[in-house]
Amino acid sequence: MASTVLHALRRQRLPLARWGPRRFIATKNVITDPMTGELMASTPDIQPSRLEITRNANPATPPPSQTLVFGHTFTDHMLTIPWDAVSGWGAPQIKPYGPLQMEPSATVLHYAQTLFEGMKAYRDETGKVTLFRPDMNMKRMNNSARRIALPTFNGDALLELIKQLIRIDKHWIPQEPGHSLYVRPTLIGTQKAIGVGPPNEALLFVILSPVGPYYSSGFKPVALYGTTEFVRAAPGGTGAYKLGVNYAPGVLPQKSAAALGYSQNLWLHGPEHYLTEVGTMNMFVVFTTEDGATELVTPPLDGMILPGVTRDSVLTLAREHASGKNRLANLADQLVVSERPVTMEEVKEAAAAGRLVEMFGAGTAAVISPVDRIGYMGEDVHIPTGADGMGPVSRPIWTELVGRQWGTIPSEWSFTVTE
Amino acid sequence: MASTVLHALRRQRLPLARWGPRRFIATKNVITDPMTGELMASTPDIQPSRLEITRNANPATPPPSQTLVFGHTFTDHMLTIPWDAVSGWGAPQIKPYGPLQMEPSATVLHYAQTLFEGMKAYRDETGKVTLFRPDMNMKRMNNSARRIALPTFNGDALLELIKQLIRIDKHWIPQEPGHSLYVRPTLIGTQKAIGVGPPNEALLFVILSPVGPYYSSGFKPVALYGTTEFVRAAPGGTGAYKLGVNYAPGVLPQKSAAALGYSQNLWLHGPEHYLTEVGTMNMFVVFTTEDGATELVTPPLDGMILPGVTRDSVLTLAREHASGKNRLANLADQLVVSERPVTMEEVKEAAAAGRLVEMFGAGTAAVISPVDRIGYMGEDVHIPTGADGMGPVSRPIWTELVGRQWGTIPSEWSFTVTE
Repeated sequence: MASTVLHALRRQRLPLARWGPRRFIATKNVITDPMTGELMASTPDIQPSRLEITRNANPATPPPSQTLVFGHTFTDHMLTIPWDAVSGWGAPQIKPYGPLQMEPSATVLHYAQTLFEGMKAYRDETGKVTLFRPDMNMKRMNNSARRIALPTFNGDALLELIKQLIRIDKHWIPQEPGHSLYVRPTLIGTQKAIGVGPPNEALLFVILSPVGPYYSSGFKPVALYGTTEFVRAAPGGTGAYKLGVNYAPGVLPQKSAAALGYSQNLWLHGPEHYLTEVGTMNMFVVFTTEDGATELVTPPLDGMILPGVTRDSVLTLAREHASGKNRLANLADQLVVSERPVTMEEVKEAAAAGRLVEMFGAGTAAVISPVDRIGYMGEDVHIPTGADGMGPVSRPIWTELVGRQWGTIPSEWSFTVTE
Repeated sequence: MASTVLHALRRQRLPLARWGPRRFIATKNVITDPMTGELMASTPDIQPSRLEITRNANPATPPPSQTLVFGHTFTDHMLTIPWDAVSGWGAPQIKPYGPLQMEPSATVLHYAQTLFEGMKAYRDETGKVTLFRPDMNMKRMNNSARRIALPTFNGDALLELIKQLIRIDKHWIPQEPGHSLYVRPTLIGTQKAIGVGPPNEALLFVILSPVGPYYSSGFKPVALYGTTEFVRAAPGGTGAYKLGVNYAPGVLPQKSAAALGYSQNLWLHGPEHYLTEVGTMNMFVVFTTEDGATELVTPPLDGMILPGVTRDSVLTLAREHASGKNRLANLADQLVVSERPVTMEEVKEAAAAGRLVEMFGAGTAAVISPVDRIGYMGEDVHIPTGADGMGPVSRPIWTELVGRQWGTIPSEWSFTVTE
């Protein structure tokens, strides 16, 4: 395979000695025959310089921020970038938000060839607009694409185009505390034929939605249903990738949990009932250890866990506190940070022994979502929460995290879109 | 829940004593609040009497049958039926085949809210058009809809509309032996908001594609790659439903298998390496038992196996032969039909002992697909095939099956579309 690539590159007279980062990117889009693995062609990557902009002639007035419902309102423009197996990535377009023309045979409609990302842009009182760790989303989006045989791309190039889109619609970003612009890049297979295989056409599009805080009046802890009759993910499956296929199957279990009086599913895996994720968020548990330390635990990235950007941020802040690199106010001195399996039995025992400190979900939409109760095997496990709904570990971490997101605490996680 | 439904029906003054089959169908579409389970409204089912037909003003000429590639060609018309949570199923439309207008926020594009069916219509030399067991597809489609919180419907009503669509485009059905019209009903969530939940809008559409025989020149046995590093399904997952989410994740494993020289994945489950399915087909294995009988085995419907129409047809024909109800020529007298788990170890041992008779996949597209080799844990297990590519059990079953499909053998499985 490697020698085939080299041979083809030689045919194209690309001098090997001159390979730099740019040429390396081009090789990422080498197209191989899905049946034989044979090299077919090397096609162009996403090129911001080819961007075509068509302004919306009838821009809308952004609605009052207090009326926003998550994901219901979209801005005046969207970004689209077509791809096909012969020509590679085509000219990016920023154009008025509106319907896509979709062939009824488009493979996304039949075989769920779709992946997406979710990130947030913030606007401060000076008008400065920032994105929170978008490099993580670009990397994960490419990992997702590889997993379902959709085309990969240069993440920096897409990010540049997303910034341009946000700049055009930046007046849509609510300025109220806790508000932001939710950015939704999506990549779909659009092959016009209903065979199952790598699509020969795809479409990447990005839409923007102004959103309010997930909890409009303080934190409201949620009750979880410890779910064993349905699974979100399995070893050898797609749980570690942000693919559409991980979401539709969760709606029915969510309805079942709601009918029993719980807000979300706590997905438990295997006969040991390992905690995996909660609804569409990563899961954290805090214990007091036998020797009196505070342990922050989250399940390891074992192939079933989505590598969440908020998960990584929480772990990083906690570890920087524990190591002394960046101490957080009001957080336990003796903090142990663990990525390790944790079972419901361990949670139950800790609750009974008074060693369960708190539990919370972490994700882009809600940032931190405290948990106060888990329905498990017919009984409820109760979890402590503070008067404000949060716990002693999530509170200081949340404070630092939203400070970095809103830009009130400067950090390298904040990417400037426009000053 | 049941009492809530009764209470709501009483409020609507539906006399309980007059409930008949029709009213029962209406209750299937009772809408409940996804969070509370509370009854919201009862909405109309699919109504064939509301069909609106717009003829294609520029009909195409069907291409020569020998040029057909599976799923690449579509007929002049399609059927669409909109649904929303307030109005229920709207007026069905048969109209020219063409692009759908899809909002970029449509949930199918983000969360894979899609399910589909595949069935075939045949046209004999007298012009009579039949469908093969479409009642099974309608039933399964409703089961799929329930699993991902898409709306259910009266299967008989949809089938009546599908027949009408086929009648309009019946000149597209190739008459050559082994040719047919592939019918693809699809149901997608089209809610215009990117929250994860039961969609408040959906679209059911049906497209038709003329197809040739899967094997243009006799049977060509395929080589399978015994796949343990990826899974198609898991307990508590969606393997038993015909959902889009079961397909996109299989493309990468299929590419990996192809790169190793195998045609399809043989999905093995658990540490025992249970056989589950092959590619997108159900799996059958034939053994000679210790006491000299012939045993036809397929994995049981344990929640991971798609309840295939061809699978059911093969089992039914084999059982009717075994019971003496309908003996098939050239099929072993002493036939044992088993739905039971089977491991790769059992297959390997039977192959070594000369007791492995044959293996084949079964599905709508290829009908019967013989297997001659399985790559498993670094070595190849070889499977006997006859000179024609088939084996002693699949051959007589295939003969009966295609006879019933083409209508040369009359049966209650053949549904008349038009005489």
